[in-house]
Amino acid sequence: MADLWQSAMDHAVAIARKAGETIREALLNDRKVTTKSSSVDLVTQTDQKVEKMIIQSVKERFPAHRFIGEESVAAGEASNLTTAPTWIIDPIDGTTNFVHAFPFVAVSIGFAVNSQVEFGVVYSCLEDKMYTARRGKGAFCNGEPLQVSDQTDVKQSIIATEFGSSRDPEVVENIFSSLRKILCIPVHGVRGAGTAAVNMCLVASGSVEAYYEIGIHVWDVAAGSLIVTEAGGVLMDVEGGEFDLMSRRVVAANNKTIAERIVKEIAAFQPERDDHSPQ
Amino acid sequence: MADLWQSAMDHAVAIARKAGETIREALLNDRKVTTKSSSVDLVTQTDQKVEKMIIQSVKERFPAHRFIGEESVAAGEASNLTTAPTWIIDPIDGTTNFVHAFPFVAVSIGFAVNSQVEFGVVYSCLEDKMYTARRGKGAFCNGEPLQVSDQTDVKQSIIATEFGSSRDPEVVENIFSSLRKILCIPVHGVRGAGTAAVNMCLVASGSVEAYYEIGIHVWDVAAGSLIVTEAGGVLMDVEGGEFDLMSRRVVAANNKTIAERIVKEIAAFQPERDDHSPQ
Repeated sequence: MADLWQSAMDHAVAIARKAGETIREALLNDRKVTTKSSSVDLVTQTDQKVEKMIIQSVKERFPAHRFIGEESVAAGEASNLTTAPTWIIDPIDGTTNFVHAFPFVAVSIGFAVNSQVEFGVVYSCLEDKMYTARRGKGAFCNGEPLQVSDQTDVKQSIIATEFGSSRDPEVVENIFSSLRKILCIPVHGVRGAGTAAVNMCLVASGSVEAYYEIGIHVWDVAAGSLIVTEAGGVLMDVEGGEFDLMSRRVVAANNKTIAERIVKEIAAFQPERDDHSPQ
Repeated sequence: MADLWQSAMDHAVAIARKAGETIREALLNDRKVTTKSSSVDLVTQTDQKVEKMIIQSVKERFPAHRFIGEESVAAGEASNLTTAPTWIIDPIDGTTNFVHAFPFVAVSIGFAVNSQVEFGVVYSCLEDKMYTARRGKGAFCNGEPLQVSDQTDVKQSIIATEFGSSRDPEVVENIFSSLRKILCIPVHGVRGAGTAAVNMCLVASGSVEAYYEIGIHVWDVAAGSLIVTEAGGVLMDVEGGEFDLMSRRVVAANNKTIAERIVKEIAAFQPERDDHSPQ
């Protein structure tokens, strides 16, 4: 099966690059916005168009494979991770950035078999950075090997996170409380690229020591999760347990010391899981 | 005098590019850190080396000009803006980013005569983006004209700001209070590049509608301030009055509507001015 997954990965890289070209073109002339769960949860025609393009292309080549795509799920499809080979797709991670031409916009394609990610591809298309990882084979950016930071002192670290798209006062309170505690450890700084996928690639690259967030979805982190671990990093739940792809909670860090230190400061809460039963 | 300032600007662009090359090289092999006002206020040998390089090069060419440089001031020199032609230099805006190889690191060179900025040069050297503006002549990035966003609805906006390097509880309280109110207007999102100069260039480019911060210094904003206004944007104090280069407070926005709306949510405070009398 190894060869089959390699050809699937080659396909993912090629289609991510093509998707990135489409996004760059759309940036110049097609950023019409509509909203989803809230007035700040944005989607564009380009998200939908790019997801369809990716899924159609994969279906032609791998007709038996399954899909979890952000826009398909938004349109009512199930979001269950079975043992079957499954492509987990975010056509535009960082839609708000895309709408504003803020420089981090990524195509994220993860591929899982038996609920385990076999490869991950994140194409940060405005930077033209192609991040890739295959399980057991390392992580790369534009072909160069990636390695997480070797920092073990959280006070010498940069931590990445996001404010997310919820403006529910309780959620915002939790987000601000955690952020403030982490800033005042004190750490060198807090940053956020505006996309989970790129934040995870920044962990893999060694630019930030850790990234944490509650509220992300499986399509935001499937590809990035493998890129982090293949670059030598670790994944954890925000309460310190095992990372769960469908739980909508993640800590990705350069090492366990930093991850566990960050976990201590996070006010954890549990959004509805990605694999919740339909209402 | 117009020709003289143009030749000074040409010199600034050339030396900023050279400084950027030095920074990119140092990123690979020389990021030894020391601290300044606090454990998270960082400086490196590269900051000092690059500032010296810029000042020496300008002195040879324009021996009568004066300087305000971040590292010279840190070393005890005065920070007064007189009527004399003055180069206002931040050799590395985003030192924390530099230390971590986070992708926004800028050389910022402003030039003021009669306390008015005549030209501004911001070289975001890891992105290889050269932002320039000359008073009355427009703003550019790598030669392409810049134009601020035409958005007037703050709810459709991205706002940039930073947490800064103070961890004083009162300052942190003010920063978090303002940030939370702005996020919950609600706006599309809050971002921060980790450098004031790049944040201002993002306003000029239209990627964010506004940037505000309290605690910045004249060398962080002198160049960026002209890049914003020459791209069609506005500057304001955080309490809504006139922008003051030496006050350590700035709102830079695409238009007055957005700037005034942001000002309403900012918990203003007054750090010691850059031109305070020596103790």
